[in-house]
Amino acid sequence: MAWHLAQAFEKTNHHSVLEVYSRSLSNAKKLTAKLYNAMATNKLDFSQSKAEVLFICVPDDAIEQVAAELKLPSGCLVVHTSGTKPLAILDIIKGVKIGVFYPLQTFTKAKAVNFEKVPICLEANEKALEKVMEKLAFTICENVAFVNSNDRKVLHLAAVFACNFANHLFTMAKNILKQEDLDFKILQPLIEETVQKAFANGPEKSQSGPAARNDIKTIEAHLKMLHSSSLMQSIYQNMTDSIQDSHYLGKK
Amino acid sequence: MAWHLAQAFEKTNHHSVLEVYSRSLSNAKKLTAKLYNAMATNKLDFSQSKAEVLFICVPDDAIEQVAAELKLPSGCLVVHTSGTKPLAILDIIKGVKIGVFYPLQTFTKAKAVNFEKVPICLEANEKALEKVMEKLAFTICENVAFVNSNDRKVLHLAAVFACNFANHLFTMAKNILKQEDLDFKILQPLIEETVQKAFANGPEKSQSGPAARNDIKTIEAHLKMLHSSSLMQSIYQNMTDSIQDSHYLGKK
Repeated sequence: MAWHLAQAFEKTNHHSVLEVYSRSLSNAKKLTAKLYNAMATNKLDFSQSKAEVLFICVPDDAIEQVAAELKLPSGCLVVHTSGTKPLAILDIIKGVKIGVFYPLQTFTKAKAVNFEKVPICLEANEKALEKVMEKLAFTICENVAFVNSNDRKVLHLAAVFACNFANHLFTMAKNILKQEDLDFKILQPLIEETVQKAFANGPEKSQSGPAARNDIKTIEAHLKMLHSSSLMQSIYQNMTDSIQDSHYLGKK
Repeated sequence: MAWHLAQAFEKTNHHSVLEVYSRSLSNAKKLTAKLYNAMATNKLDFSQSKAEVLFICVPDDAIEQVAAELKLPSGCLVVHTSGTKPLAILDIIKGVKIGVFYPLQTFTKAKAVNFEKVPICLEANEKALEKVMEKLAFTICENVAFVNSNDRKVLHLAAVFACNFANHLFTMAKNILKQEDLDFKILQPLIEETVQKAFANGPEKSQSGPAARNDIKTIEAHLKMLHSSSLMQSIYQNMTDSIQDSHYLGKK
């Protein structure tokens, strides 16, 4: 997250990143090497810093501890970037303004992110601060939403289904194809069309396949083909039941 | 299928569709109204037809019955368009050439299909016929593969996971968001990036989320949030287990 966010800010707000913290100084330096004028550090003491905003980009469970150890100039703004943790987790830091700055995207170091299209979900506990954060977010993206702590949790859960789990279905499909030396790429147009349709017509309206048309013979044949993995059979059966529940519900 | 296929052929091979059959004449006429010179019929007697190729585009379980009733000029080519049925299901038709012409795409009447990008999976039982079918397929698309009956079944199973089930995950995500009046569209950049990454790096390499990083607290919180649906809990748990199985397997 820090890797992509720092570079996005540096790109649109030149020389805007002043310091990069990591527990490991050499990791911090890998990022500062990509930036114009930022200093790497492994100390959480920013009391002398001229920075106006501090981003906490650490694993969810480390946020509280980092927040407790931070030393900051009074009046600066501290935000975390987590989809699951509430704003209030930062209440522990006294004398500063707090917020949440959650880019709804999947990050891996190896792949550059085009932030323009990433929705950034913001939360602040005062109106004046919302304006400041909105302005900040708009410097790197075009799509900003205010989402409170509860809704952000719901959004994160939805993203787990729509992205993490969908990606795992792609892995399962790839593994099924590999057994017969078939190339996963053959599914690309179909998957892309599925996504396009889901947003054009609504996914509930474009559901197709054996479950949706209650094609019992094909369902049984598929379960038989999956005999070597009871977990895959169970996923197939659950997804089929769930499609049928919502499909017939939609038609009632 | 007939709806899209007939229009695709008509577009690139002008006036190439001669007859359209449906049990209901008025349904057949809806399609011929879109074509230049085709005749609608509700009889399966094509013995006087000048057509060189006949496409059977009916539900999988109706193929055998339609094939049994068909009357055809000898020597013509009959193909079915099913992902799950073997070529041999057409053996019942005597005195004709048989094949499979399976476009790997999801079709709904309301949405036009750009066939150029659709992979068409072909099967024939003689080499000379393969050439003919390949030429025919290339008139409407750029992506042709020969896939035998067994592999086509495997491909169809993979497509159920990667498309039908993935689409249902999108529906579940949409329903989760709806409870808090959040718009499904907010997930679009994330889903599109997930698909792009899956094909750029492989889905097994881009798996992220609480299951992949074994974030037990978040997994437990999510299961609690799903308390009103034991089926969704079960899908969440199974997908999490399966991600963890393959994730740790990949790292061993």
